[in-house]
Amino acid sequence: GAPIFERETYSDNDYAGVITGLAWTQVGGEILFIESSLNKGKGRLTLSGQLGDVMKESATTALSWLKANADKYGIDHRIFENYDLHIHVPAGAVPKDGPSAGITMLSSMVSIFTQRKVKAKLAMTGEITLRGKVLPVGGIKEKLLAAKRAGIKEIIFSERNQRDVKDIPEKYTDGLKLHFVKDAKEVLEIALLTKKVEDPIKFDLPKK
Amino acid sequence: GAPIFERETYSDNDYAGVITGLAWTQVGGEILFIESSLNKGKGRLTLSGQLGDVMKESATTALSWLKANADKYGIDHRIFENYDLHIHVPAGAVPKDGPSAGITMLSSMVSIFTQRKVKAKLAMTGEITLRGKVLPVGGIKEKLLAAKRAGIKEIIFSERNQRDVKDIPEKYTDGLKLHFVKDAKEVLEIALLTKKVEDPIKFDLPKK
Amino acid sequence: GAPIFERETYSDNDYAGVITGLAWTQVGGEILFIESSLNKGKGRLTLSGQLGDVMKESATTALSWLKANADKYGIDHRIFENYDLHIHVPAGAVPKDGPSAGITMLSSMVSIFTQRKVKAKLAMTGEITLRGKVLPVGGIKEKLLAAKRAGIKEIIFSERNQRDVKDIPEKYTDGLKLHFVKDAKEVLEIALLTKKVEDPIKFDLPKK
Amino acid sequence: GAPIFERETYSDNDYAGVITGLAWTQVGGEILFIESSLNKGKGRLTLSGQLGDVMKESATTALSWLKANADKYGIDHRIFENYDLHIHVPAGAVPKDGPSAGITMLSSMVSIFTQRKVKAKLAMTGEITLRGKVLPVGGIKEKLLAAKRAGIKEIIFSERNQRDVKDIPEKYTDGLKLHFVKDAKEVLEIALLTKKVEDPIKFDLPKK
Amino acid sequence: GAPIFERETYSDNDYAGVITGLAWTQVGGEILFIESSLNKGKGRLTLSGQLGDVMKESATTALSWLKANADKYGIDHRIFENYDLHIHVPAGAVPKDGPSAGITMLSSMVSIFTQRKVKAKLAMTGEITLRGKVLPVGGIKEKLLAAKRAGIKEIIFSERNQRDVKDIPEKYTDGLKLHFVKDAKEVLEIALLTKKVEDPIKFDLPKK
Amino acid sequence: GAPIFERETYSDNDYAGVITGLAWTQVGGEILFIESSLNKGKGRLTLSGQLGDVMKESATTALSWLKANADKYGIDHRIFENYDLHIHVPAGAVPKDGPSAGITMLSSMVSIFTQRKVKAKLAMTGEITLRGKVLPVGGIKEKLLAAKRAGIKEIIFSERNQRDVKDIPEKYTDGLKLHFVKDAKEVLEIALLTKKVEDPIKFDLPKK
Ligand SMILES: [Ca+2]
Ligand SMILES: [Ca+2]
Ligand SMILES: [Ca+2]
Ligand SMILES: [Ca+2]
Ligand SMILES: [Ca+2]
Ligand SMILES: [Ca+2]
Ligand SMILES: [Ca+2]
Ligand SMILES: [Ca+2]
Ligand SMILES: [Ca+2]
Ligand SMILES: [Ca+2]
Ligand SMILES: [Ca+2]
Ligand SMILES: [Ca+2]
Repeated sequence: GAPIFERETYSDNDYAGVITGLAWTQVGGEILFIESSLNKGKGRLTLSGQLGDVMKESATTALSWLKANADKYGIDHRIFENYDLHIHVPAGAVPKDGPSAGITMLSSMVSIFTQRKVKAKLAMTGEITLRGKVLPVGGIKEKLLAAKRAGIKEIIFSERNQRDVKDIPEKYTDGLKLHFVKDAKEVLEIALLTKKVEDPIKFDLPKK
Repeated sequence: GAPIFERETYSDNDYAGVITGLAWTQVGGEILFIESSLNKGKGRLTLSGQLGDVMKESATTALSWLKANADKYGIDHRIFENYDLHIHVPAGAVPKDGPSAGITMLSSMVSIFTQRKVKAKLAMTGEITLRGKVLPVGGIKEKLLAAKRAGIKEIIFSERNQRDVKDIPEKYTDGLKLHFVKDAKEVLEIALLTKKVEDPIKFDLPKK
Repeated sequence: GAPIFERETYSDNDYAGVITGLAWTQVGGEILFIESSLNKGKGRLTLSGQLGDVMKESATTALSWLKANADKYGIDHRIFENYDLHIHVPAGAVPKDGPSAGITMLSSMVSIFTQRKVKAKLAMTGEITLRGKVLPVGGIKEKLLAAKRAGIKEIIFSERNQRDVKDIPEKYTDGLKLHFVKDAKEVLEIALLTKKVEDPIKFDLPKK
Repeated sequence: GAPIFERETYSDNDYAGVITGLAWTQVGGEILFIESSLNKGKGRLTLSGQLGDVMKESATTALSWLKANADKYGIDHRIFENYDLHIHVPAGAVPKDGPSAGITMLSSMVSIFTQRKVKAKLAMTGEITLRGKVLPVGGIKEKLLAAKRAGIKEIIFSERNQRDVKDIPEKYTDGLKLHFVKDAKEVLEIALLTKKVEDPIKFDLPKK
Repeated sequence: GAPIFERETYSDNDYAGVITGLAWTQVGGEILFIESSLNKGKGRLTLSGQLGDVMKESATTALSWLKANADKYGIDHRIFENYDLHIHVPAGAVPKDGPSAGITMLSSMVSIFTQRKVKAKLAMTGEITLRGKVLPVGGIKEKLLAAKRAGIKEIIFSERNQRDVKDIPEKYTDGLKLHFVKDAKEVLEIALLTKKVEDPIKFDLPKK
Repeated sequence: GAPIFERETYSDNDYAGVITGLAWTQVGGEILFIESSLNKGKGRLTLSGQLGDVMKESATTALSWLKANADKYGIDHRIFENYDLHIHVPAGAVPKDGPSAGITMLSSMVSIFTQRKVKAKLAMTGEITLRGKVLPVGGIKEKLLAAKRAGIKEIIFSERNQRDVKDIPEKYTDGLKLHFVKDAKEVLEIALLTKKVEDPIKFDLPKK
């Protein structure tokens, strides 16, 4: 049969750039992890994990938004041209697509570029646009179920998904803190801690 | 079924480079947003939002026209080679194609390159050619309906679409100010305000 | 149904690089416009307007001929490496192919590189080879009809299309001045005026 | 019929970068060899042996992890940009795919970059993620059989494959030392000896 | 129906780089012209005229042979890196493939690089290898017929096509001078005159 | 029908880089020639002769092995980055694939890089791996027949093909000297003479 996600559980927030997303497949909801890595290079972007073209475009859209708003997050612009960014979504053999990982990929990028820790037990799902709007996505009920099952305690949605959540019986959301946001800035305020990860990257940049 | 546009409403004109276009799909007319972003780079053009090749060619045609007419809009030529331009059309999973977003993409580019604000509650639809002619497009009635529904107050069309508008009952155009234009210059005079957006980009350019 | 050309009429010769061609489609003959644009860059060639690979090869063949004969037309060789050439054929959604726009694209290139005006009310159709020979093309009768209808007064053909014209009733060619040529040099002598367009490009070239 | 692996036996650990992997095909388990080579160049990665795109993504994921953790293994960062890495998986005509060679490719890379010898008679199978987690893979029983038959004495698995091993009759694992690991660091501690290979590469690097 | 060659006749030998080849199509033999052009550039090779991949590989093979033997023909090696070579085969809409134009493309290249005139009324057909061997090709009888019809007086074949010619009634070869050659050197001795074309290119080369 | 090899006979060993291989097709065995050429350039590899992707990967594997072992063969490393290597396999229209030309391509490369002559009347067949192992290939009986018919006197096989030869009636191998080898080093010891070809390339290299 078609490859599906093996059931994952939330692990921890030790690593920069690891964010929990929510996927919606034919067999239900599932959590997935977006991982990011930054290495000295020439500003290349590598995407892996059998991502479809819509998901790849989400990543480039998130990256362009981040470049345009780098100052607000204290990111030195020279990093973009002197480091290579790799985003990977395990499991590596499972095809993934769609725009709903947009804010997850953005949060992962901001975490790896700033080396800030990610809030524990948080998941998110939402499309990102180039001006930073967060658009609604589908499969809300299935994603809520999957998040609970995996040990998630907080979820970020688009404010335009609020109507979808209202239609769902309360037991699905019991014990979950739900955030409904309008834009990227709100996502990052919720998702990223001020504290940096252990042994943060010391960026090696050319003289200005 | 085939992916369709979720119904959007006009939001605001706070951002440079965000222009409202009009799309014509199998299920009727719809508004869409063209978003642009400029980041330090090497003059690359990135297009996202599942754009078909006709729509991508529209973008390169609009950009070539803009480069050839940059002086008239006070755009420093060094920006073209020292910044990367990204154009995105949400929703990211909806395939889009056709030449009718030509003038919308052009207006978006001029706004982002000049940081000038866009006129509020304005939408537009029309093909652009390399010499700046505005060619007529289809789906006029459906587009008028969609624009009204979304709160649009003014629309720009090709003058060669005037005959199509005449065939449409007056109630479709009541309360809408319609502009019929011949060329790109007229589009930009209508669409762009003199005022710049808040916190405009301060372009960082190499010495001449 | 398949996309076809919307009926165009000849407009004017105000712009450098705009040449009228003649196309032959399943529903008859039609005029089309070849547009060219030159912008500071690195010698790249961009082709748009849904051109097929035969038509794209025609463009590269015409460009190679022009480079090899640039001196004869007073074109500074540094322009080829320091400017980007864009050739577009509206309407942008109509697929176009075949070698018959070869001399039209060549004339468009010479006009944009020299900024010389194009003869008014002139159309042309013919394949170009790398050594500048003009080869015959098909659809002569349909093209004559389309040219007349659009207000064209003169047409350039390959001398090897002379036999095809002879077989056509005289009423098709009444009021049209027909040129039958052997090579690119003759085409350009007919098509380009000595006079430059208004506000010609002032080429900005690196020191030799 | 479809190409299959010719039965291989473990040879020796004389070469840097040669690691034994375990494959699972339609006709059972099989061992395969991951080979690596480093030559002066520009940081290019070449993959050969008819690898599918999932397997290629595994290689880039492993390489990004290694770059991010190079310091811990005493690898000079300048090697990544001044040498070309080639990874080959014989037999060259047999199509191979899937993520299960992830830790095998990683071990091969670390061996070739450090020139450290590989532990003798060791095989491994497991997916690698960008943060270095080792994910479980399929075909455990078949892989155990193949390893024994080929003369392997130790195998590395993901700790999440422990449950699969428990379900297998003991005779399959008799005489095999099994390692169940959580992350890349553990894999490398088991797989790589401190001792370098004979005639190790003397890296020729540009001045810092 | 499938596109076929319009019947061509031999014209003249005024241009450098124009060589007459012999093609074999489903409807019989035909002559074709290989044209070459050299323009200042960066050593790029452009091939046009709807050439198939076998024919394109013939061109690269011929070019590699020429580079390796440039000294023997007095060609300055700096031309290869400082000029772009374009090879075109009219008619531009007719698909062409196969290795039999190998020696024709080689002769065209040598003529354009040396600016030497080509022998009048000469045609040729034969595969070229990297070490300069001339291999036999098919359709000999049809090619002989086509050559005669087009006004050709001399033809070059591989010596391994001698047996094919022997089987053909004498009337096919009457009035034709046939050359049977082993290698590229012999082809070029026959095909190229010592005399240069009028107005030869004056190569503009960087200082050594 | 499908294209097949025209029957070839062994010619001579006058050229560097020409090695005789053995192919196995649906209609039996055949000899083929691997040709190599080295020209000043930028380290590019060109492969021609309608080679399939497995055969292309064989070439890159052989080249990586050679780069890693260049010192042992007295090859100056600067040649790899300052010359372009072209490998061609005539006949140019015959599709070829598979890994069995691995050692043939390697021997061709070493001959062209060292300008050493190749042993006369020698053929070979075997897959090469990145660490230089020679793997067995199929079609042994057919290849023996083809080699004899073409005038070959010595053949190199993988030692793992020894069992296949044992099963073949002695008349097939009468008069042939067979070599069974384990690795690339042994192949090259047999295949390459110490003597250089006439007029060897004088490599023109940048200062160290
Ligand atoms: Ca998993
Ligand atoms: Ca898609
Ligand atoms: Ca929407
Ligand atoms: Ca299309
Ligand atoms: Ca039109
Ligand atoms: Ca085509
Ligand atoms: Ca094997
Ligand atoms: Ca795949
Ligand atoms: Ca013709
Ligand atoms: Ca082919
Ligand atoms: Ca042959
Ligand atoms: Ca294949």
